[in-house]
Amino acid sequence: MKTVPQPDKQVEAAARDRQLQLTKPPGSLGRLEDLACWFAARLRTPIPDIPRTEVFVFAGDHGVAARGVSAFPQSVTGQMVANFAAGGAAINVLVALEGCRIEVVDVGVATDAPTPKGVRNARVRAGTRDLLGGPAMTDAELTAALGVGEECAREASQRGAQLLIAGDMGIANTTSAACLICALTQTTPERVVGRGTGVDDAGLARKTEVVTAALARTRRAIGADADSGKQPPAQIIAHLGGLEIAAMAGFYMEAARRGVPVLLDGYISGAAALAAVALEPAAREWMLASHRSAEGGHAVALQALGLNPLIDMSMRLGEGTGAALTLPIIRAALTLHSKMATFAQAGVAGAT
Amino acid sequence: MKTVPQPDKQVEAAARDRQLQLTKPPGSLGRLEDLACWFAARLRTPIPDIPRTEVFVFAGDHGVAARGVSAFPQSVTGQMVANFAAGGAAINVLVALEGCRIEVVDVGVATDAPTPKGVRNARVRAGTRDLLGGPAMTDAELTAALGVGEECAREASQRGAQLLIAGDMGIANTTSAACLICALTQTTPERVVGRGTGVDDAGLARKTEVVTAALARTRRAIGADADSGKQPPAQIIAHLGGLEIAAMAGFYMEAARRGVPVLLDGYISGAAALAAVALEPAAREWMLASHRSAEGGHAVALQALGLNPLIDMSMRLGEGTGAALTLPIIRAALTLHSKMATFAQAGVAGAT
Repeated sequence: MKTVPQPDKQVEAAARDRQLQLTKPPGSLGRLEDLACWFAARLRTPIPDIPRTEVFVFAGDHGVAARGVSAFPQSVTGQMVANFAAGGAAINVLVALEGCRIEVVDVGVATDAPTPKGVRNARVRAGTRDLLGGPAMTDAELTAALGVGEECAREASQRGAQLLIAGDMGIANTTSAACLICALTQTTPERVVGRGTGVDDAGLARKTEVVTAALARTRRAIGADADSGKQPPAQIIAHLGGLEIAAMAGFYMEAARRGVPVLLDGYISGAAALAAVALEPAAREWMLASHRSAEGGHAVALQALGLNPLIDMSMRLGEGTGAALTLPIIRAALTLHSKMATFAQAGVAGAT
Repeated sequence: MKTVPQPDKQVEAAARDRQLQLTKPPGSLGRLEDLACWFAARLRTPIPDIPRTEVFVFAGDHGVAARGVSAFPQSVTGQMVANFAAGGAAINVLVALEGCRIEVVDVGVATDAPTPKGVRNARVRAGTRDLLGGPAMTDAELTAALGVGEECAREASQRGAQLLIAGDMGIANTTSAACLICALTQTTPERVVGRGTGVDDAGLARKTEVVTAALARTRRAIGADADSGKQPPAQIIAHLGGLEIAAMAGFYMEAARRGVPVLLDGYISGAAALAAVALEPAAREWMLASHRSAEGGHAVALQALGLNPLIDMSMRLGEGTGAALTLPIIRAALTLHSKMATFAQAGVAGAT
């Protein structure tokens, strides 16, 4: 297995130096300056072009949907995959504005319908097992799901992608994500479980109970390391994860191994990023947080990752929409970095 | 003088209804949904097109620059106007990405150099007087500066502009803006005065002293209404404002009278918006806040206006850059609103 490369700190310093020469007070472009330098270090050039970006939407179903933890029926996962294929979903609209490639990947939709045209059929299983009753995935299923994401990142990198986005679709996947965030950050469900697509108070109470019980079941099943008190991350992910979440984690790990930055999305993406970093800690250096989700537990995941999101628009849709919405900010940052006049070029005096 | 029209609440309700039909959980696009409805009410159509946007950068100098309140020499105002004309400044880069019209307006630059080609010469005076020594502007100069902005908004509206941005350039204008924010919101200088383009600790202390003394001088000079305890806003603006800030205020007022929404920028824009609302309270309904500036007092201005900015990227450059950076978010919100499939179109089940 390849190791994860380090960003180039020398190139980053050269980019920082260029920022000081541009016709503006030093630091006055705030986080746009940091963004330009972040990309310089990772694209390994002091004045990077706008990165070629690809979006993958990973879809999978969750056995735990049968516990009444979502406001929508399980059939919506497959219906939304068809909507992605037809170009009618929010992520399609945002990707069309940006002109980047999008691919929809069925990692585990529970449907008998044929795979819609244009959707990659990489189904590991028709939905996970109920994570409350037992492990959501076998070890082999987890490996296969991680591999789906790894393969997507590999292909994108070979096509020349320089920035990757993973989105999600999966009814009940905020329940699985909540379990992962709790287990991987050792946080209580009360701080992590939210309303997802919009469950009512009774649904929220039920969801919190399910997460609490599933965490207890997993703790009993897999035990913890005697020294660290931690549970082995692959076991946590197999017991509590989702097929699409595992694919996203594999996608993030493989992107990092290939030195391709990833732009994280919301709550599900945050859980997948925690899973990726649990398995491959150096992957974190290649992650950029796009937005903070309205799902409160997302902030817990971001904090554990040490990431500060660019925007907060109170979104909670997934699909990669929060990430896609921030692409113009990245484009602006890099275009300012490359196109603004310097003090010398413009004949403008510097600070006194 | 025309009165300010009201946004259309019925059209807003129709837009809100459409949002509920789109293939996503209700509310899951967060503030993007609110943005689409905000524009629907003001552009008076339930599914608005992307608004035709124009940017005006108003430039003016400040007599108070002689007090050592800025990190840059006064000559930079004129040099930056030349940089705008040559297309090398940050706002030029952002406007080019958006493809919208930009015009640079000299309302009061203190320079002997000829007006650069492409810059509108509407100079009222070669910089304001020192606001610490006496009124920055006469009443006639204030009226003239307001009129410059009004004329720009009138012309843009007649060209069919549907969204207007005003940016600023003026060395020492954060001192004038701080005075206006303090006087118009009755807040102490300590909460409002910041480092502007980057003064050091001694500069910040000097700037705070200047603002405190100028506020005291103005209070003595113009008195306050016996009933409300408030000072007449036009007098506050003449005593403490800047020519470019007054032009921005006039621009905002005239846009509102013509029913054209404005996208506010940062600290200077916030002071100008407060001035506009002080003179024409209904103008507030036509204002959208783009970003929160790193200049701490901006939050004071936004709170007094009752506006919640879309993003916070720790920017403090002015020129209209914060506003221009949020145009893609508005475009995304309106495109999602118009292009996403409905549940019925996509054959997706709604919430159970």
